[in-house]
Amino acid sequence: MASAVFVSVIYSEHASWPVFLSSMITLFCGALLWLVFRRSDKSFSKREGYIIVTLGWILFSCFGAIPFFISGEIPSFTDAFFETISGFTTTGASILTDIESLPKYLLYWRSLIQWLGGMGIIVLSLVILPILGIGGMQLFIAEVPGPTPDKIHPRIKETAKRLWGIYVFFTCAETLLLWLGGMSFFDALNHSFTTMATGGYSTKQASIAYFDSPFIHYVITIFMIFAGINFTLSYFALHLRFKLILRDEEFRFYIGFIVIFTILITLILSLNIDQPFEQSFRQSLFQVVSILTTTGYTTTNYIEWMPIGIVFVFLLMFFGGSAGSTGGSVKIIRVVLLLKNSILELKRLIHPNAVIPVRMNRQAVPTGTVHNVLAFVSLYIFLVMIGIIVISAMGYDLESSLGAVGATLGNIGPGLGVVGPIENYAHFPGIGKWFLSFLMLIGRLELFTVLVLFSSHFWKK
Amino acid sequence: MASAVFVSVIYSEHASWPVFLSSMITLFCGALLWLVFRRSDKSFSKREGYIIVTLGWILFSCFGAIPFFISGEIPSFTDAFFETISGFTTTGASILTDIESLPKYLLYWRSLIQWLGGMGIIVLSLVILPILGIGGMQLFIAEVPGPTPDKIHPRIKETAKRLWGIYVFFTCAETLLLWLGGMSFFDALNHSFTTMATGGYSTKQASIAYFDSPFIHYVITIFMIFAGINFTLSYFALHLRFKLILRDEEFRFYIGFIVIFTILITLILSLNIDQPFEQSFRQSLFQVVSILTTTGYTTTNYIEWMPIGIVFVFLLMFFGGSAGSTGGSVKIIRVVLLLKNSILELKRLIHPNAVIPVRMNRQAVPTGTVHNVLAFVSLYIFLVMIGIIVISAMGYDLESSLGAVGATLGNIGPGLGVVGPIENYAHFPGIGKWFLSFLMLIGRLELFTVLVLFSSHFWKK
Repeated sequence: MASAVFVSVIYSEHASWPVFLSSMITLFCGALLWLVFRRSDKSFSKREGYIIVTLGWILFSCFGAIPFFISGEIPSFTDAFFETISGFTTTGASILTDIESLPKYLLYWRSLIQWLGGMGIIVLSLVILPILGIGGMQLFIAEVPGPTPDKIHPRIKETAKRLWGIYVFFTCAETLLLWLGGMSFFDALNHSFTTMATGGYSTKQASIAYFDSPFIHYVITIFMIFAGINFTLSYFALHLRFKLILRDEEFRFYIGFIVIFTILITLILSLNIDQPFEQSFRQSLFQVVSILTTTGYTTTNYIEWMPIGIVFVFLLMFFGGSAGSTGGSVKIIRVVLLLKNSILELKRLIHPNAVIPVRMNRQAVPTGTVHNVLAFVSLYIFLVMIGIIVISAMGYDLESSLGAVGATLGNIGPGLGVVGPIENYAHFPGIGKWFLSFLMLIGRLELFTVLVLFSSHFWKK
Repeated sequence: MASAVFVSVIYSEHASWPVFLSSMITLFCGALLWLVFRRSDKSFSKREGYIIVTLGWILFSCFGAIPFFISGEIPSFTDAFFETISGFTTTGASILTDIESLPKYLLYWRSLIQWLGGMGIIVLSLVILPILGIGGMQLFIAEVPGPTPDKIHPRIKETAKRLWGIYVFFTCAETLLLWLGGMSFFDALNHSFTTMATGGYSTKQASIAYFDSPFIHYVITIFMIFAGINFTLSYFALHLRFKLILRDEEFRFYIGFIVIFTILITLILSLNIDQPFEQSFRQSLFQVVSILTTTGYTTTNYIEWMPIGIVFVFLLMFFGGSAGSTGGSVKIIRVVLLLKNSILELKRLIHPNAVIPVRMNRQAVPTGTVHNVLAFVSLYIFLVMIGIIVISAMGYDLESSLGAVGATLGNIGPGLGVVGPIENYAHFPGIGKWFLSFLMLIGRLELFTVLVLFSSHFWKK
């Protein structure tokens, strides 16, 4: 947060006190907490793990909201909290109606929040959640193929460092490319922050549509694709072990979905809108990748597409990125597992006495894991149901409710209807903003991490 | 079909030849098939079972469509087939835009189709599907509580006779009550046919809204509720064994859902529409029961309700009646099982080494059954996804596509948007009508029965 002070100084913005004061408040509170709760024993129980992760994201959001609030740029704390948790959860849903009016140091802080959130998610999903045993996350860990030497260094600290190294590397590379492509260094850095986090905050109200450069669109598309891939695979890629990547089934389906949906939407746009083919292709590819990876950037107002285009966007909202990426929503691996299991059920009907397991990367997936994934998806559906009831109770129509709930629970950002690409979340009543903030938190922490805290069994000895 | 000739005679309609000719054609083809395929061995394999059931429904619909087609009342065979399969699957989706213009014998045949379809479904779901092992249907069979004497007579023929006895009894009782309530005998009989089948075909274009009598509305509501209950339970009820019914969890949830949703929608209507409280209550109860049981009658144009009312209707479309009733869609028992399983997954996370089974009626549900139900629901979701892609490709918006797919796959009839309560399915292109007919068939036969025929494993030796 303190680094935002330097941004303020560099761009000669005189009002850097809000972010400086916020840093001091955060430092003071942090120090106080550390003094009170520090202990020599560094181990913690699973239960503590759940609480630490959930409370961590909430506290980050409370403190991260202070600069927006005390600077007066976002005068309501509800709004400031919404904007910040939308950042830390890498959602990108915004209540701002004139983004360009914000001072640069706040824009920088807003993007940095997403980048930090993304950093947290990588470690959470690849290191911490597997330990907690959440939501089929064990799957792709067991998947890192081959014997021990292939495995990423098992210790948390070391693994985190390596994954973050890749994250920083991608961010720098994208910044450089966007800068070369004609963006200002400031915009390049900010967009790289939010691309790699699949967050989608832009420094422009019009999002990426502001930049009228195919080069910039393609660069961002490519880095969104990187951000939506399991970071373990990127680690292998940087060590030139491409075979391991091509063997990975989730990766193949991820690329497959991008190709198929891009072709379909390109066709639809070409047949219906009078614009050059390259433009239709670029818009399709960009929006497919942006929604699938749950980034949420926009280069076109997709809710003006033909109905089937909107239906595709709606469906993609529930696919999500790869497990172990910064992408949110249900995640490719779960969708694929579900699809495979349903098809195999037909085979099981024909051969009722045969044991027919689901296979991923040629290995049989344990029944417990399949069950866990199925429970995750059912829970996701129930949350969407509850979500649309709550949101529609505030007067929003079915399409907008589905859009708002899908886009926040899936950590995407823009949705459908009144939360479409050129809209924002400012018009929701306060209670609606808190509810959607809660959905973002649940979605980002793989449902179970948060919901387990509401189970009576959790609090029993 | 031949009985429609008598209706024609009774009401002095002179053009009864179409239905007479159709009966003769059907009789001739049936006799031919019987002569060619008859054999002394009455047993059949599971594979043959799937084919017989699926082909049966398709053939019934082909022959049942003949009277509509050759009478010229529905001049397109696509339309006639759509109307008939919508009847045999007890869906109630209609392409007719002026129902009252049909001669009485065709109206009678249209309602009778649904009644026969309902008859088929009871035996299919309570006797045949459990043998084929489909979709968690074993669940409630195992559930019939207590030792052997409690169990319904196991032989197919005997069981079918008993269940049909109840079906006929309910139909007669409703006809009598509706007649007493002021309907003509013809209308009373027709509506009783389609109530007990949870079909929803009416002899009036305005559906039940045509009858401006609270008594009629309440009578139909009550019989829709009966039709949505597992017929095994009705069998117990008629033998005054009420304890067995109250113990049944699916029944309790079914009544619970009706009560909760009725209260919620009554509140919404009372607060927003200026009409007597009783009317709001009656409309809410009627529509909740009609959608939940997948009947599809309407007394009010619910798509003019406030957004949250529409969202409730949308959600109810995916709940469905009880297993072993004539109701379609996902079915209460599966929804409850899914909900329970998701909540238990939280408990399983906290106690990873404990075996925590889902319980129904105090008994642990076998893992295989839970798995089967989860696979059913995933498959249902994938079918909805494919469905809305296909329908939206024909230019229908998201809400209408969701409505049309939900209403046909769930065998409800009216949906949302352009297939709302005062609309119909006439405006779909031919390919759309065939596709929706296919969805009705898949939905009615519990997905697997039909889809298994598309599996390559099915056709391998």
